[in-house]
Amino acid sequence: METKLVSTLSQAISAAGLTDGMTISFHHHLRNGDYVLNLVLAEIARLGIRGLTLNASSLFDIHLPLMQHIRSGVVGKLQTGYVSAGIGRHLSAGILAEPVEFRSHGTRAADIAAGRVPIDVAFIAAPAADCRGNCTGKLGRAACGSLGYAIPDALHAKTVIVITDTILPYPLADWSISEAYVDYVVQVEEIGNPQGILSGTTQITRDPVGLIMAELAAQAIAASGLLKDGFSFQTGAGGASLAAAAFLKEIMLREHIQGSFALGGITGYLVDMLRAGCFRQLMDVQCFDLDAVSSIRDDPRHREISAIHYAAPGSRGAVTDSLDVVILGATEIDTEFNVNVHTDSAGCLMGGSGGHTDAAAGAALTIIIAPLFRARLPIITQHVTCISTPGTSVDLLVTQRGLAVNPAKPELARRLQAAGLPVVDIHRLKAQAESITGVPRPVPRGSRVAANILGRDGAIQDQVMTLPEEG
Amino acid sequence: METKLVSTLSQAISAAGLTDGMTISFHHHLRNGDYVLNLVLAEIARLGIRGLTLNASSLFDIHLPLMQHIRSGVVGKLQTGYVSAGIGRHLSAGILAEPVEFRSHGTRAADIAAGRVPIDVAFIAAPAADCRGNCTGKLGRAACGSLGYAIPDALHAKTVIVITDTILPYPLADWSISEAYVDYVVQVEEIGNPQGILSGTTQITRDPVGLIMAELAAQAIAASGLLKDGFSFQTGAGGASLAAAAFLKEIMLREHIQGSFALGGITGYLVDMLRAGCFRQLMDVQCFDLDAVSSIRDDPRHREISAIHYAAPGSRGAVTDSLDVVILGATEIDTEFNVNVHTDSAGCLMGGSGGHTDAAAGAALTIIIAPLFRARLPIITQHVTCISTPGTSVDLLVTQRGLAVNPAKPELARRLQAAGLPVVDIHRLKAQAESITGVPRPVPRGSRVAANILGRDGAIQDQVMTLPEEG
Repeated sequence: METKLVSTLSQAISAAGLTDGMTISFHHHLRNGDYVLNLVLAEIARLGIRGLTLNASSLFDIHLPLMQHIRSGVVGKLQTGYVSAGIGRHLSAGILAEPVEFRSHGTRAADIAAGRVPIDVAFIAAPAADCRGNCTGKLGRAACGSLGYAIPDALHAKTVIVITDTILPYPLADWSISEAYVDYVVQVEEIGNPQGILSGTTQITRDPVGLIMAELAAQAIAASGLLKDGFSFQTGAGGASLAAAAFLKEIMLREHIQGSFALGGITGYLVDMLRAGCFRQLMDVQCFDLDAVSSIRDDPRHREISAIHYAAPGSRGAVTDSLDVVILGATEIDTEFNVNVHTDSAGCLMGGSGGHTDAAAGAALTIIIAPLFRARLPIITQHVTCISTPGTSVDLLVTQRGLAVNPAKPELARRLQAAGLPVVDIHRLKAQAESITGVPRPVPRGSRVAANILGRDGAIQDQVMTLPEEG
Repeated sequence: METKLVSTLSQAISAAGLTDGMTISFHHHLRNGDYVLNLVLAEIARLGIRGLTLNASSLFDIHLPLMQHIRSGVVGKLQTGYVSAGIGRHLSAGILAEPVEFRSHGTRAADIAAGRVPIDVAFIAAPAADCRGNCTGKLGRAACGSLGYAIPDALHAKTVIVITDTILPYPLADWSISEAYVDYVVQVEEIGNPQGILSGTTQITRDPVGLIMAELAAQAIAASGLLKDGFSFQTGAGGASLAAAAFLKEIMLREHIQGSFALGGITGYLVDMLRAGCFRQLMDVQCFDLDAVSSIRDDPRHREISAIHYAAPGSRGAVTDSLDVVILGATEIDTEFNVNVHTDSAGCLMGGSGGHTDAAAGAALTIIIAPLFRARLPIITQHVTCISTPGTSVDLLVTQRGLAVNPAKPELARRLQAAGLPVVDIHRLKAQAESITGVPRPVPRGSRVAANILGRDGAIQDQVMTLPEEG
């Protein structure tokens, strides 16, 4: 059998024909435990290749060595869906000459699939692979479950290099990505630190404010008219969102409601809901904890989906478009219901849409859970610092002091009021918060564009400016 | 949820924008039980659309109504991998003005994937689907197991129409083809007759000549040096091939040999070998019987593969290229080891390569099992009527009177002789047969080309002429 194994990363990079100015890509399933992006960039730098565009589905603080490669000119442009706070600080300080391009996970997948964002070489960190490139996230030391975000890269990049620390006998039959899309396989010592990839279990909030919001959110879902047999649901891994799922589970079991599917990043709580019969299926683009990883490996009702199938706008089948309810977070939300998840209130990059914008656009009911203030900063603003998800996609804001319904959804407001839920005008919630925290002063901005936020239609939806120069 | 259901086939065809001269495609997993091709063509004819190119992975006698659509000009060109005898007679009589294009299953997949054979509208007969187009062959009344041959069509056709008789709740999570590739879903009363799709179980031959050949083939594999841990294997569903697998199983169990995978069209015999531990995995592009269908549905070691992953030449990963041994049939084989599986000895089309040429090209050891004669016609000829699989891909001919080794493989001949197996020159086998049957007279040919046989490189490898005009 002819294998695709090459002995070193350096050989794979050379064999792929990587040269100055090309675009390379990475996925983020190993999250803050990922060693692969740093390994690859160090090798590329050593080979003297420069001026690359780096397309990463997300970037975490473990990737801070990337800043050195930007300074030295190895990487000249950045395309991503999310950056952690440490990376964000450098980007907001203007480390790149050109603005970072932010896309939602679905938009990234659609643009790659359509060739609008061509990738020359995709580097696929795979927890297990065989010698011909069949690879999976379900097995191996650094098992992370779904490889959904890597699938568009594998399908559409000109050259695909699989990097793994665990070679299994051919054929690895339960592949996420098949050998039909892989050019080279490189074995390295470790692709990641399991501690950084997954929390042992994700945790429901114990914060009383969080619990109040979670219960309100679950009650709002129950009152919305959508919670019936066939119900579908997505939520993030934040503590309040998980608590909302727990309250929802109680309601569903009590009322014998059989949902159809839960979607998105999957946690052990959603696995529990599957096992309890709340859903028939889990559609998993990313596993958030170890329970989700063992479930996707062992339970055929728990299925991996590609980022295209998950959320690509303009595609023939994004599951987000069939979604009933999604619960999402916000660092800011304004009185037009626009949501910011890219920056903090000071305008410093510290996040990104991920699938936020996609799920909000698709779901019949998009709920934002956010407290009225954090660290004495009000969350509801006149205008968000950055429009990550447009208010036209947002239906309901849940705070500890009541629910604000988007005026475009009067029927929803009526249903919530009829259920006796505390529906409040968003301007009143804003005033309440400001009566406690005061009205924050406008944040000064720098003179350059640090980031272009692309909307789901591919156009620039907003821009994030650099922070003001110090001194 | 926005469904993709349209009420009638006619609406789906119109919505797809099908017009004169376009290319439509079909898969053959429902084999001689398929109702869908006839249903679709009848509707297309009713709509007055003409001059279509029909690309079908295979055609069976149930598709004889197609002849009427050829006569009336609805279908003007044909591309396929295989035709049954009834269809073949019409094609050999010259019903089409242009030659039929035959491709191996792997070549068809590669040409579709590369855009060399563009498909405007793919009609995917799916035993079960949901309202958004996620579909599978594993469930439903007409369950056929793998949909491997339909996957290239779904991935690359401009428009994809799923036709099913069984709509299951969304999401159908165990999809063969996901909604991300499907435009429309049409429910019809019945997509096929299960009796014609699958035999209850495929049967080992009881014919003494077949059993002699089967045992010789198994002994040859054992002597070849390839039968060791990690061994991989493909065989067809013919009685002698299945008997060879049964003899092979005995040897593998006796000698505690753990193979890696069995490939191709999968039968209950290969499922038994999986369960007995002879193989770790089954890689299944097509299920031949009910045991295979229930196994691919329930056993995660039994995995569906696309025709691209199975056998596409020039791809990054055709499993056929990693194959140790394949056992194949022949209607004729010549002294250069060229094999004919397209025509009978009279030159009438009655078959096709299917995956024959692909598996032969990839396998380390390609074995042809064929008796010295059938119905008093010798099988070994000076020149085959049609080169389906070139002799350069064929290593060994097994007959009831001995084994003929391709002279290009002297090491194989030495190994078989050392094992005491009856190795005979192919010319001597030919003479033996002719001493019994006599030398057949040359077959008269008609004046037109009935079929172009394309090789795996895309060039015309051989041509089949029409039969001589009668009278």
